[in-house]
Amino acid sequence: MKYTIGIDLGGTNIAAGLVDGDSRLIVKASVPTRASRPWREIAADMAALADRLAKEAGLPFSAVCSIGVGSPGTPDTKRGIILFSGNLGWDRVPVAQELSRLTGKPVLLANDANCAALAEGKAGAGKGLSSLVLVTFGTGIGAGILLDGRIYEGFNFGAGEFGHMVIRSGGEACTCGRKGCWEAYASMTALCRQAGRAALKNPSSALSRLESSGEGLNGRNVFEAAKAGDETARAVVGRFLQYVSEGVVNVVNILQPQAVLIGGALSKEGDYVLAPLRRYARLNAFCRNNTLPRIDCASLGNDAGILGAALLGR
Amino acid sequence: MKYTIGIDLGGTNIAAGLVDGDSRLIVKASVPTRASRPWREIAADMAALADRLAKEAGLPFSAVCSIGVGSPGTPDTKRGIILFSGNLGWDRVPVAQELSRLTGKPVLLANDANCAALAEGKAGAGKGLSSLVLVTFGTGIGAGILLDGRIYEGFNFGAGEFGHMVIRSGGEACTCGRKGCWEAYASMTALCRQAGRAALKNPSSALSRLESSGEGLNGRNVFEAAKAGDETARAVVGRFLQYVSEGVVNVVNILQPQAVLIGGALSKEGDYVLAPLRRYARLNAFCRNNTLPRIDCASLGNDAGILGAALLGR
Repeated sequence: MKYTIGIDLGGTNIAAGLVDGDSRLIVKASVPTRASRPWREIAADMAALADRLAKEAGLPFSAVCSIGVGSPGTPDTKRGIILFSGNLGWDRVPVAQELSRLTGKPVLLANDANCAALAEGKAGAGKGLSSLVLVTFGTGIGAGILLDGRIYEGFNFGAGEFGHMVIRSGGEACTCGRKGCWEAYASMTALCRQAGRAALKNPSSALSRLESSGEGLNGRNVFEAAKAGDETARAVVGRFLQYVSEGVVNVVNILQPQAVLIGGALSKEGDYVLAPLRRYARLNAFCRNNTLPRIDCASLGNDAGILGAALLGR
Repeated sequence: MKYTIGIDLGGTNIAAGLVDGDSRLIVKASVPTRASRPWREIAADMAALADRLAKEAGLPFSAVCSIGVGSPGTPDTKRGIILFSGNLGWDRVPVAQELSRLTGKPVLLANDANCAALAEGKAGAGKGLSSLVLVTFGTGIGAGILLDGRIYEGFNFGAGEFGHMVIRSGGEACTCGRKGCWEAYASMTALCRQAGRAALKNPSSALSRLESSGEGLNGRNVFEAAKAGDETARAVVGRFLQYVSEGVVNVVNILQPQAVLIGGALSKEGDYVLAPLRRYARLNAFCRNNTLPRIDCASLGNDAGILGAALLGR
């Protein structure tokens, strides 16, 4: 049996897991990243975590064939260098080389969203498909593209930024500097902003009560208010899902992958999101020969990053 | 020397050419399509055209290794069937099989926009690149994607419909049934519509004079009026180029190809279009490590379709 280790290097935690030859996650562990430290200390913690995982699985470290690292930002996957990561505050850090030196293993590097897409394609909701796009709706919108069974990252390792696709020319300002990006309309952050505005205009709505409560508005409770029948919340969620759908059908029309998978916090809403999304796609996608890509929720949740990183070495 | 024949099967004309092993177009010829005829007659004309090209080049027909056909609509390139073409009025036509039977040659089929992208990548403005997107701005917006040196067409042969990417949620109606597609804002047809509205509002503008003249508004004379300094035309063209730029940077952020090439009528404006487009891209593309794809005009013009079809067999 060939074992590999996957490390999901986040701005807050380093999460890692040991994966067997059948793409099963055997053991998991994590340590805080403490990203402000010198990067070599972080690499040393990653090496120690790998060692610990093998021990916890009762395996000699020699049974581990390779280590994969999923990193935020833009990694140069050919040279194993993180070119830039805002979350880590890293600029041209040769993390793969260092981790390989410390562990004696081949180390592979990829962007975390791409790792998640790879995992969903090999062992998740897209298992058995050779092409898919995983779109993760959370604080922002992240995406990973899998084509011919492999991560597609463009010539500069930066492809898949569907979140920074303008869907409303001249619209709301995005963190990237453009106006009208999909992320500014269809991320969970955008939903909360839209709900906040609606709450102001409709002081008798459930949204308004939520906002003035200690809880505040989060994506979850905006959806709950809509499901419970609050008119204002229903209108907000309806319009939000229209933005989600417009972007997803853009993905379809541009890439025609076998599947578009919805990940992140939005995927927790399941059929409440999938049903209108599929209906919009059936009516609007540019699929002349009635071959609409599958639209589904991702299935691996937070483990997708670890698993995908572990699969980089396959 | 290996020769191949490329056929650009259009709704109006069947244009064909014989190409040598160095991707040079040796001879060209065309006949009217007369699309309302039975498709077998059209296939017979294609076969006759192939025969005529070899004769005109002074070659025995046995010197032709393969024939490629670029077709409008959605071809099933694996089975050589045109699944659907509105321009031809075809539905599930096995044109490659028939042409192969008539000529005794292997016949390859691909979408015409994809053929043009292949040609630009092998012998045109993108020569030597392994990835590019060719966007053709004309009556509509067509696009072809080249990845790893090969045409990318998605799982259902329909990928690359960047023209039907919503860039203005809730915006103008598109021919595809959605609202706010790039094609509804950045095709030459859209430019004329935008110019027509501006002419109505500004009766003293050059646009208004053009509209009421016999000539009418076309993309070309709107650009000319802007270059000549007409304020209304400048405003129209400036906003139009903003729409063009927004979509091009979407292409960049999504696929990060080595180049985005501008084709069709818009490419005739050269630097007048390229300069603001590149400026917008430098300021707005999501390329963290300063690696912006090349943005250029396509170089093969109308021959791209023929040449790309001829290259399918390589």
